[in-house]
Amino acid sequence: MKRFTISVVATLLLGTAAPVFANDSVLAATGDSKQWAAQLGDYAGTRYSELDQITNENVGDLQVAWTFSTGVLRGHEGAPLVIGDVMYVHTPFPNNVYALDLNNDGKILWRYTPQQDADVIGVMCCDTVYRGLAYSDDTIFLHQADTTLVALDATTGDVKWSVVNGDPAKGETNTATVLPVNDKVLVGISGGEYGVRGHLTAYNIADGSMAWRAYSTGPDEDMLVDPENTMVLGKPVGANSSLDSWEGDQWQIGGGTTWGWTTYDPDLNLIYYGTGNPSTWNPAQRPGDNKWSMTIMARDADTGVAKWMYQKTPHDEWDFDGVNENILVDQEIDGTMRKLLVNFDRNGFAYTLDRETGELLVAEKYDPAVNWATHVEMDPASDQYGRPQVVAEYSTAQNGEDVNTTGICPAALGTKDQQPSTYSPKTGLFYVPTNHVCMDYEPFRVSYSAGQPYVGATLSMFPAPGSHGGMGNFIAWDAVAGEIKWSLPEQFSVWSGAMATAGDVVFYGTLEGYLKAVDAETGEELYKFKTPSGIIGYVMTYEHGGKQYIGVLSGVGGWAGIGLAAGLTNANDGLGAVGGYAALSDYTALGGQLTVFAIPD
Amino acid sequence: MKRFTISVVATLLLGTAAPVFANDSVLAATGDSKQWAAQLGDYAGTRYSELDQITNENVGDLQVAWTFSTGVLRGHEGAPLVIGDVMYVHTPFPNNVYALDLNNDGKILWRYTPQQDADVIGVMCCDTVYRGLAYSDDTIFLHQADTTLVALDATTGDVKWSVVNGDPAKGETNTATVLPVNDKVLVGISGGEYGVRGHLTAYNIADGSMAWRAYSTGPDEDMLVDPENTMVLGKPVGANSSLDSWEGDQWQIGGGTTWGWTTYDPDLNLIYYGTGNPSTWNPAQRPGDNKWSMTIMARDADTGVAKWMYQKTPHDEWDFDGVNENILVDQEIDGTMRKLLVNFDRNGFAYTLDRETGELLVAEKYDPAVNWATHVEMDPASDQYGRPQVVAEYSTAQNGEDVNTTGICPAALGTKDQQPSTYSPKTGLFYVPTNHVCMDYEPFRVSYSAGQPYVGATLSMFPAPGSHGGMGNFIAWDAVAGEIKWSLPEQFSVWSGAMATAGDVVFYGTLEGYLKAVDAETGEELYKFKTPSGIIGYVMTYEHGGKQYIGVLSGVGGWAGIGLAAGLTNANDGLGAVGGYAALSDYTALGGQLTVFAIPD
Ligand SMILES: O=C(O)c1cc(C(=O)O)c2c(n1)C(=O)C(=O)c1cc(C(=O)O)[nH]c1-2
Ligand SMILES: O=C(O)c1cc(C(=O)O)c2c(n1)C(=O)C(=O)c1cc(C(=O)O)[nH]c1-2
Repeated sequence: MKRFTISVVATLLLGTAAPVFANDSVLAATGDSKQWAAQLGDYAGTRYSELDQITNENVGDLQVAWTFSTGVLRGHEGAPLVIGDVMYVHTPFPNNVYALDLNNDGKILWRYTPQQDADVIGVMCCDTVYRGLAYSDDTIFLHQADTTLVALDATTGDVKWSVVNGDPAKGETNTATVLPVNDKVLVGISGGEYGVRGHLTAYNIADGSMAWRAYSTGPDEDMLVDPENTMVLGKPVGANSSLDSWEGDQWQIGGGTTWGWTTYDPDLNLIYYGTGNPSTWNPAQRPGDNKWSMTIMARDADTGVAKWMYQKTPHDEWDFDGVNENILVDQEIDGTMRKLLVNFDRNGFAYTLDRETGELLVAEKYDPAVNWATHVEMDPASDQYGRPQVVAEYSTAQNGEDVNTTGICPAALGTKDQQPSTYSPKTGLFYVPTNHVCMDYEPFRVSYSAGQPYVGATLSMFPAPGSHGGMGNFIAWDAVAGEIKWSLPEQFSVWSGAMATAGDVVFYGTLEGYLKAVDAETGEELYKFKTPSGIIGYVMTYEHGGKQYIGVLSGVGGWAGIGLAAGLTNANDGLGAVGGYAALSDYTALGGQLTVFAIPD
Repeated sequence: MKRFTISVVATLLLGTAAPVFANDSVLAATGDSKQWAAQLGDYAGTRYSELDQITNENVGDLQVAWTFSTGVLRGHEGAPLVIGDVMYVHTPFPNNVYALDLNNDGKILWRYTPQQDADVIGVMCCDTVYRGLAYSDDTIFLHQADTTLVALDATTGDVKWSVVNGDPAKGETNTATVLPVNDKVLVGISGGEYGVRGHLTAYNIADGSMAWRAYSTGPDEDMLVDPENTMVLGKPVGANSSLDSWEGDQWQIGGGTTWGWTTYDPDLNLIYYGTGNPSTWNPAQRPGDNKWSMTIMARDADTGVAKWMYQKTPHDEWDFDGVNENILVDQEIDGTMRKLLVNFDRNGFAYTLDRETGELLVAEKYDPAVNWATHVEMDPASDQYGRPQVVAEYSTAQNGEDVNTTGICPAALGTKDQQPSTYSPKTGLFYVPTNHVCMDYEPFRVSYSAGQPYVGATLSMFPAPGSHGGMGNFIAWDAVAGEIKWSLPEQFSVWSGAMATAGDVVFYGTLEGYLKAVDAETGEELYKFKTPSGIIGYVMTYEHGGKQYIGVLSGVGGWAGIGLAAGLTNANDGLGAVGGYAALSDYTALGGQLTVFAIPD
């Protein structure tokens, strides 16, 4: 099969280069809780830290220790990394990188300022965000908006190599971080709103050459799908599973982009990531299940071949991209320890699967407002097994083109978007930054032109009706029971990444700009501080000089903050987000700052 | 005389409008130490606050209370104002204004975002800075970069009126704050590097109509100079004093802009301000004293007529604009209380004058590095009376065109630029943010074209040789003795505005971004904190809910930070500042943030 050829060629090319084993480096770096070495904290994606100097007892004493302006405005997603005595700070487009000396008041050791064509901004759907740097083996991986992947020497900032993963002229861009695994680095692509055909690509860490590429749609060999051995809900997927689920060649411009998160289980040597919405947003233009958009993918980390797949939202009618992080935890179910994968999907269901087999264990709503489906069919004997049961009233496909389907919950940006959750092994709970937003959705016919928006729906968004009036909740979730443990109402979507610590504190940021700390057990608010701008960055922690610090980037933006970030005021602009979040401008203005907190001596 | 006609006409125009007495409002607002109601703290320009909760004993406990991102990058000069429960924050170009609710975590009550043509940026010599808002009678005065003066309703942000003071197409811009006095608001203009003919203009507060305009150069009637009654060092100035000091019509493009500070003595009803450099920077193109560039002006606040004038640097050869703030204090000299005016000039001399008469009392170097003049002649009998005695070696005029005069101290940006000093009546000392920078200066012939740079010299700047290696000092100055009391070395120019308080603390910011607090008596450093970006803003303080706060804007830029602000890297760019301050990029990046400090409960 063609895919194995690619893989073998790549291996041969690597023959003379020194072997690189990112896993050892990443495991060592993320295992040292003094550091913050990966966007999701670890390969498993828990965003949990063992540091426990800051506790639910003393977090109320937190103060600002130091600050740093990134020199860039608009949405700041992601978190700085800390490796040893150096902090690495990234920015949104133009994707500058700063190495700050923690031993010297954050003096700038080096800065890397890529020269990118600003035209790429015009084809980024949801602000100029970037979900941050990755690290392994004294290398900082920068994945630019224009899809250039750069390996930087962590000590000097010198470029080791760079490679281009896509073409912004076709709407291919990047916002995601990358994941170094074994001797490769795994790289996604954005552009679902431009008809980009999604893929995950592995580049060899040694020299940036391509090892393999796995498309989200199309022929099995393009997808690195093995018809006999790639499993779907316990059964071999069979030949042409994607091709058979599209009309004609629509899969070629059918989306399924990979702009979210990849996690990794070193024992199983499997990587996990999700694919985005099928293109266009007008379901009438793409009959069928549109496989494998909206799918959790489990692939062999070396070959890229799919071990199992699970499509969460077949034939999407609401833009519920399936790219959210898959958190890998071991928990007991019915008395047996299970290797689990937990995913809080945009569609409002939280899924618990067996990450070895892809078996579906739990699928429950993590916001009671979710109304587009009654439930996910859990009976393996049913022909609907694993499928959400769509409510006709909220089906934009059934209501048809040019009909405004109203009151769908959640809105297109989902009950949760890309903002990562966190898991505390001490409580066994997941802490999830969520949206509490509903929408009206009117699909319309659109024609494809490379590099032009290929959206095909008009949206408007509003707070979930009949609720607390706010647009967000911060919840604690039991992934075995499939139940909300507690839920904290928020005025706006919680668009920041959360972090739990061994100090029994959970941190998150709000769109108004507050950093908040709550008790991991009870959810009680223990601390809040108003940072310079709205927070869509991810909270991180590190220890330096014997002291624990909490860090977070401020800088309002992302899809929720696109009105402020891009200066839009028409309610339907920004893919429908501008109107819903208009009140945000009463609370905050654009920014780009790191705030670091500590408990004073 | 023509000038009186103008004034009378304006008064007639005002006949029907309600009378406005800004003084009462400004005196009340600045007299309430809970507020920060003027950029210089008060009419006298002391930047002193009576608040004393934060003291030299407890300032070490200061912590960040809250923060606000302005949404704009580049140099943030000026300070926010606090009137009642509202804080007014301004930005550099595009000169946005935010009214923040101090009772509600800084919620944005209103924002004003002027639509200015971005072309004005190209004709701003020294970054897109703005030295801040002014207040009187429930009115916020915004003076935009494009010279539009806007009166905003302080409660609603609604525009009461606006008036245009100059033409950016001719290089006329604004960076200065304005001063409301009596029924008028006093307004300067920038553009000395574009051959702009400077003027101070009074607009009627009631409706924005012009009351009078006093040019810095030209015929007596244009200058509102009274040949018999306008005094210069104790003698009537005589007719045509300006015209006689220029060759031909050069005064028409001869600079003397008014981009600095105005202070006011309500008892004398006199306003004080300074005029900038004569244009061009090539002295060979403008033989003569170039009056009244480089001059301290004392004018009647109602009529604008000059009471007295004093030219600090006749026939400037170094760009030593004379626009720095004139601080009005009463101190004892030889046993007699005197009404003094103290001015720390760019040229490196600190002047103490009698502010009623313009008598010159003290003129001493406030940086020992100053070498371009030996001293200022103090003998009234001498024909050199009041004139600096130029050292031939450092005379760019004597060395001539196309000759590089090296090692001149201070550099063009002076021993102090616009960054305002502060005065503590408790210690009787002035605290002065200074530059410790020298230069090479090579004049060359340049021809005038409206709206085009009209500079005529190539500069390079460097730390004062044979000193501590840094580019700045923060000093305490005795203006009666004419002596430095103490001097704190700084790595970079201290480009921020200082503030002294009744708590015996003096605050200032550094270009690396530190807010520093020092003991008013000893200069001992008591506290420092690294804010997000380099500080060129002015420290302010206010009390709210019974608690004292310290606020400062970060955002590196201004002339010293122009390399970072405008992304320049060629050493001679930015009028010679880029090379000297290149190391600044190792410490900070662009920003635009307010940081507010308090002592935790
Ligand atoms: O389909 C895509 O390729 C794509 C890309 C991105 C992106 O790259 O940021 C987002 C989305 N879709 C999207 O649907 C979405 O909700 C979203 C939110 C954000 C964000 O960072 O706030 N990006 C994106
Ligand atoms: O001659 C002028 O009109 C003019 C204007 C300005 C200004 O408006 O900022 C500065 C200067 N000159 C100048 O000489 C100077 O040193 C300077 C420093 C700064 C600053 O804000 O950092 N502005 C200006």
